[in-house]
Amino acid sequence: MTVTSLAADLSELDRADPLARFRDRFHLRDGLIYLDGNSLGALPRATAARLQQVIADEWGEGLITSWLGAEWSTAPQRIGDKIARLLGADPGEIVATDSTSVNIFKALTAALSLRPGRSKILSEKTNFPTDVYMMQGIEAFSGGRVKAVAVDPAAVLDALDDDVAVLLLTQVHYKSGRVRDMAEVTRRAHAAGALAVWDLSHSAGAIEVDLNGAQADFAIGCGYKFLNGGPGAPAYLFAAARHQAATPVLSGWFGHARPFSFEDDYDPAAGITRFLCGTPPVLGLAALEAGVDLLLEADMGELRRKSLRLGDLFMERMEPLCDRHGFELASERDPALRGSQVAYAHPQAYQIVQALKEYDVVADFRAPDILRFGLTPLYLRHRDIAETVERLEQVCATRAWDKPQYHQRAAVT
Amino acid sequence: MTVTSLAADLSELDRADPLARFRDRFHLRDGLIYLDGNSLGALPRATAARLQQVIADEWGEGLITSWLGAEWSTAPQRIGDKIARLLGADPGEIVATDSTSVNIFKALTAALSLRPGRSKILSEKTNFPTDVYMMQGIEAFSGGRVKAVAVDPAAVLDALDDDVAVLLLTQVHYKSGRVRDMAEVTRRAHAAGALAVWDLSHSAGAIEVDLNGAQADFAIGCGYKFLNGGPGAPAYLFAAARHQAATPVLSGWFGHARPFSFEDDYDPAAGITRFLCGTPPVLGLAALEAGVDLLLEADMGELRRKSLRLGDLFMERMEPLCDRHGFELASERDPALRGSQVAYAHPQAYQIVQALKEYDVVADFRAPDILRFGLTPLYLRHRDIAETVERLEQVCATRAWDKPQYHQRAAVT
Repeated sequence: MTVTSLAADLSELDRADPLARFRDRFHLRDGLIYLDGNSLGALPRATAARLQQVIADEWGEGLITSWLGAEWSTAPQRIGDKIARLLGADPGEIVATDSTSVNIFKALTAALSLRPGRSKILSEKTNFPTDVYMMQGIEAFSGGRVKAVAVDPAAVLDALDDDVAVLLLTQVHYKSGRVRDMAEVTRRAHAAGALAVWDLSHSAGAIEVDLNGAQADFAIGCGYKFLNGGPGAPAYLFAAARHQAATPVLSGWFGHARPFSFEDDYDPAAGITRFLCGTPPVLGLAALEAGVDLLLEADMGELRRKSLRLGDLFMERMEPLCDRHGFELASERDPALRGSQVAYAHPQAYQIVQALKEYDVVADFRAPDILRFGLTPLYLRHRDIAETVERLEQVCATRAWDKPQYHQRAAVT
Repeated sequence: MTVTSLAADLSELDRADPLARFRDRFHLRDGLIYLDGNSLGALPRATAARLQQVIADEWGEGLITSWLGAEWSTAPQRIGDKIARLLGADPGEIVATDSTSVNIFKALTAALSLRPGRSKILSEKTNFPTDVYMMQGIEAFSGGRVKAVAVDPAAVLDALDDDVAVLLLTQVHYKSGRVRDMAEVTRRAHAAGALAVWDLSHSAGAIEVDLNGAQADFAIGCGYKFLNGGPGAPAYLFAAARHQAATPVLSGWFGHARPFSFEDDYDPAAGITRFLCGTPPVLGLAALEAGVDLLLEADMGELRRKSLRLGDLFMERMEPLCDRHGFELASERDPALRGSQVAYAHPQAYQIVQALKEYDVVADFRAPDILRFGLTPLYLRHRDIAETVERLEQVCATRAWDKPQYHQRAAVT
């Protein structure tokens, strides 16, 4: 598929872009091309002022009264309801709080409690690591009652036997960007008597998601990627209304029916509130809400179309580099299977990502040999994509990546 | 004990107060007397600027590179090491992350794994509810292997039988402020073959704590009370160096030995890092660090002495009100048994706390009949205590609390 090959056409695409107005709503340094919004989303301009208000007015002036007066105590549900609009969920089915990992634990243990005769949590190898690590922690604590099973990605549906209680999959794979068919996979899980838990970390705000249309059981996801909620933002948890009678294992006081009665025994709140645990992280939630509010101004269909257009353009421009410099496409071409990123394998992937920084392009390395380029349609322009490939061509043509300091790997998220 | 009964003496006490200089380091509205710093600490003036820097510079400009460049990724350990200085712990024994409730779960499950032949988690009734709720969630998930037992406070040491794996107690009781003897109770737990987990939510920054002197095994606590870390601040977890080989149940990627190798199997990091779970909450941690940094400028011995002096003054001034208006002291007189708060029982406790707000005094109601006054020596003056009792006297003398709107209870933390 040819998007364009002329600079003039790029300008035309940017001019005609119905999402172009959103770029100015973010703080983005001139010259920088930021292709890592699927790791840490950029800063919405509104966020700093919002946080300042929470700190100076709500905390500084309102102090303890802000739990009610500034509606801190219901922020997890309020923001959850907003996220629900992005994900095809109903009000009262999502809360925003805790980390993705902790919410995975909540979703898996809730799902296990709804399938008492079964022992397996099933997932795929190469899934984002924390998903499988959390499964393994549950297995270790279960005293033999729970088995954490991760099989080859292609074998996962065939592994749905009658001992699988819950299937945990990521809708958009973190490395390849491959999209799972949520409705079909959920149908298969249900047909086998299992529940489906979806990790939407690379879906929310990036592709159209329809949790209830797909009959999903539980879902969790990250607040700091396409939701632009800030570093380490609170994550979210979806529990379909029909599953909200499950008893939480992380049974903290904010999930209690009457937390401020200070009762001696746990009595879970009705509805989604029982999936809260400790005191909500107010500052992080305020930043997350600013990011979600901004995203809600955009049309999700427009976002998806632009994301695919940016990906098409990227792959088109990369074709000569694949021939000349040994890049190999490591993500899907088919729009139905493609998330909001493109990935290439290259033996020097790590060094190239480092060298690109000197050209003011921020991309991501994922072990062992993947360059990952996140496409965030709210703040990327078509010309940024073309410019990225030009800078990458320079890095390769000059072997700018071949410096000793780039051979020492450091940790990045 | 008589502290003073003359206004002139109060001014002298405030002039001679070695901690007086700290009051200006907080944002406190003129006229307000804030006696709820043990529920939500006041706002340090440095916090807003620090958050602004994290948002604008580290997130907005640094973006993903700030995980290393601004040391986000090691913030839980760095701040943990600072909190360790307040609590008699060593560097590498504390991390700051997640909520208190989630950290209780981590500490209890780690302790259980170290006492495999035993089934009980023991605590006391009237403990802060989330502590016992988290125990009950573990019991519910354990399939009969774990029993959550909460006995009368006076009976807890006698309940240390040879089936108790772990004793969970709060050092300073949230309602009465009563202080448990950490060293003696821990000794008793160890003598019975159990481990001791301490909740320090009302201790840290309020009284002198010596975790390693007391041979404590695990501890957890809250960041938003005397540490002044902001609403819903990250909490902290202490694991004594000798227990850091325990396998975490909440085995998220930030507790992995090599999180950025994206390996398929969980391999816990050495040391305290394995008690991390998901991605650290960077914004909340930055606010917490500002609060902890401020506290570290003060001398803990001075803080404790002033706290007791404020309490003595409060009780002295309250004596006439006890006689005339039916208040009954509900906290300890003995300095060795008294945390940084005083509490009174009164049949109209809830209404009186509401009425005090009109007199610009913020105190706390705790069901069923307790008025709780938090004493925060960093920002309270002796004259604030005397003034509080005068305003309380007016509330009672005029029956200002007897308004219909005060009879409708609302939730406050």
